[in-house]
Amino acid sequence: MDIREEMRQVADRAREASRKLSRISTEVKNRALMDMAEQLLQQSSHLMQENKKDVTFAVNSGLASAMIDRLTLKESTIQDMATGIREVAALSDPVGKVTSMWRRPNGLMVGRMRIPLGVIGIIYESRPNVTADAAALCLKSGNAVILRGGSEAIYSNIAIGRLLQDVLKKHSLPEAAIQVVETTEREAVYELLQLEEYIDLIIPRGGEDLIRAVVRQSRIPVIKHYKGVCHVFVDADADLDMAANICINGKTQRPGVCNALETLLVHRDAAPRFLPEIARQLREKGVELRCCEKTRVFIPDADKAEEDDWYREYLDLILAIRVVDDMDEAMDHIARYGSLHTEAIVTKDYANAQRFLSEVNSSTVLVNASTRFSDGFQLGLGAEIGISTTKLHAYGPMGLEELTTTKFIIYGNGQVRV
Amino acid sequence: MDIREEMRQVADRAREASRKLSRISTEVKNRALMDMAEQLLQQSSHLMQENKKDVTFAVNSGLASAMIDRLTLKESTIQDMATGIREVAALSDPVGKVTSMWRRPNGLMVGRMRIPLGVIGIIYESRPNVTADAAALCLKSGNAVILRGGSEAIYSNIAIGRLLQDVLKKHSLPEAAIQVVETTEREAVYELLQLEEYIDLIIPRGGEDLIRAVVRQSRIPVIKHYKGVCHVFVDADADLDMAANICINGKTQRPGVCNALETLLVHRDAAPRFLPEIARQLREKGVELRCCEKTRVFIPDADKAEEDDWYREYLDLILAIRVVDDMDEAMDHIARYGSLHTEAIVTKDYANAQRFLSEVNSSTVLVNASTRFSDGFQLGLGAEIGISTTKLHAYGPMGLEELTTTKFIIYGNGQVRV
Repeated sequence: MDIREEMRQVADRAREASRKLSRISTEVKNRALMDMAEQLLQQSSHLMQENKKDVTFAVNSGLASAMIDRLTLKESTIQDMATGIREVAALSDPVGKVTSMWRRPNGLMVGRMRIPLGVIGIIYESRPNVTADAAALCLKSGNAVILRGGSEAIYSNIAIGRLLQDVLKKHSLPEAAIQVVETTEREAVYELLQLEEYIDLIIPRGGEDLIRAVVRQSRIPVIKHYKGVCHVFVDADADLDMAANICINGKTQRPGVCNALETLLVHRDAAPRFLPEIARQLREKGVELRCCEKTRVFIPDADKAEEDDWYREYLDLILAIRVVDDMDEAMDHIARYGSLHTEAIVTKDYANAQRFLSEVNSSTVLVNASTRFSDGFQLGLGAEIGISTTKLHAYGPMGLEELTTTKFIIYGNGQVRV
Repeated sequence: MDIREEMRQVADRAREASRKLSRISTEVKNRALMDMAEQLLQQSSHLMQENKKDVTFAVNSGLASAMIDRLTLKESTIQDMATGIREVAALSDPVGKVTSMWRRPNGLMVGRMRIPLGVIGIIYESRPNVTADAAALCLKSGNAVILRGGSEAIYSNIAIGRLLQDVLKKHSLPEAAIQVVETTEREAVYELLQLEEYIDLIIPRGGEDLIRAVVRQSRIPVIKHYKGVCHVFVDADADLDMAANICINGKTQRPGVCNALETLLVHRDAAPRFLPEIARQLREKGVELRCCEKTRVFIPDADKAEEDDWYREYLDLILAIRVVDDMDEAMDHIARYGSLHTEAIVTKDYANAQRFLSEVNSSTVLVNASTRFSDGFQLGLGAEIGISTTKLHAYGPMGLEELTTTKFIIYGNGQVRV
């Protein structure tokens, strides 16, 4: 059987499963989810053993450290996966929820009811925890899912996928509701992306190159973000200890992820006190600085930032820094160089906080908090299926409700149009 | 200046206007909308005069009657336009609305705030009332709009567009917030559809050929429905007078529109009493019938339906009729031949009503009411910008809120990730 036919069959089984899934009760789905969490923990040493094969191969191939960080399944990662799935089980089931209902003057009762999207394809790389997170969110929201991870995580993904399918089977749920593509052939992705009659939505997760390739090839709607060029703006009167904490956390807590800080904007009035100190702290953590001319007045030995640096998502211990005259200049910088992902302001000024929240139209905007909170799990969505920086359908971290749509339901008693 | 550059300039002006629009207060937008409604009424004879040029040309060109119906601006159409705009003004402004806000265990306050999509392109044909409806909804939701109607309505659309721009100017709003493309050159549409850097969403409204051409050419996301093959299922115990009213209304009140009834499904137990009578009433209204074999037992002189008829959107006084054994067969027929647009059941049975509403996943599902209610204005959305039968972003009639997205806003007091 060739790859095209193999993928068509995967998608066909998913479509079949999705029809059944939309009628499964919340209780049955929740019992399966709780069992999945339990099995992940019980079989964690088996999962780490399979993951070890992937990690060893990656280390020997000289993969970048950020990639290996994302690939590695630690005991704590598996616990986080299980916790995430339990949190999904605890969330209310969006399917069948009537989000609003109103009465028309002619007596018609008009409401909107949530229904699943159908079949969702996830194309991702590196992080095997995506396999469990995505499967849980899709199952809870009544969608069938096709998971296509990277070849570098194939052992981990297959192990997780089989564990989840075993649980589905045990609970008499269609096994094809969660399918991990087991071939590592590159054409498999292309073939999946052509199956618009079977798959309703594609969510790519990974580096910009992967995402651009998916968008270019797909005939199915894609929800994505290309990159996260996240900014922190330190206002004139910011609490400078708080600002330093937020910058250090944003840049160094996990530099390889999309909500890490990439560009720091500092109000000129805060620059003299803030810049020398934050430079010292960042360098202590091994961060390389790329600075505008005004910044270099206060950090004379820092590298000069080129125009290109303002667009960069370093995903590494590198930070671009610019001094701005006021908040307008900061917002202009964000509008010009930003990626609509996540921006934060550190300020004590009430009006500036409100104005920044209101006027910056990136998908996540924070006051006095780290950009690292731009994450479905952190924001309380239970887990996260992806982050969107395109405004249609979903914008920002996507959880359970973003995997559904609403139909109109109308109760009448004989009404006709006049 | 060539068409490509002309369209780029139109789109560039729209993008500029959209930035300003997102900061305009609700009051200013509402005053402009109320004035637009007023001006439409005051200048109705001028508009009908311009429309007359289009209609005369259409009649002389031998355009189909359904097309001419949609093209014609009557006094009542203009009144409906004005009423629609006033209803939009009366609706609450979605922009800036915080749809929900919750507190995380670490004290972060996380909310979702509605923001405009940006620039919306509407590609439509025939109905000049779309020009005013779409402009009002886009203005209220803070979006700039580019309106590209058909050449058959060019005089009407230009007249309406100028009237609306005059009002914008009078209220110191950016005129480019509402732009009617004044050239009838075909390439203008293609060029607009390439401008993904300027335009956020394309909504085509018109026949299936127009919509397919737009989808094929567009690099911008498109929300659309190809056709409306709407069904009424008359259940075994339906009130047959109510069923007849609903069928007559669905088929004959305005046959040229997408929510008109196209296929009637009748439970076999209702067939003997219902079919002869509904056939008589439909024929009285000039409706041609295309029937399955079981239907022809009761309407012997009716034409035979071919397989192809079940897929057809006639947009004319033609109705396909099929007898089914039970509701499951009716729902299977709808799943197989339907277009995910609008389906209705006529029944007295509580369980069947609930099951039909729950299991039929078309974008609008009704109990005991005419399919003709599948319309944003009728459902209380104020007006309608289009109907979507694709599940992403919006499904069914789209009003004001469907022209916005939400961003995450987060209030912190120094939180960092641990």
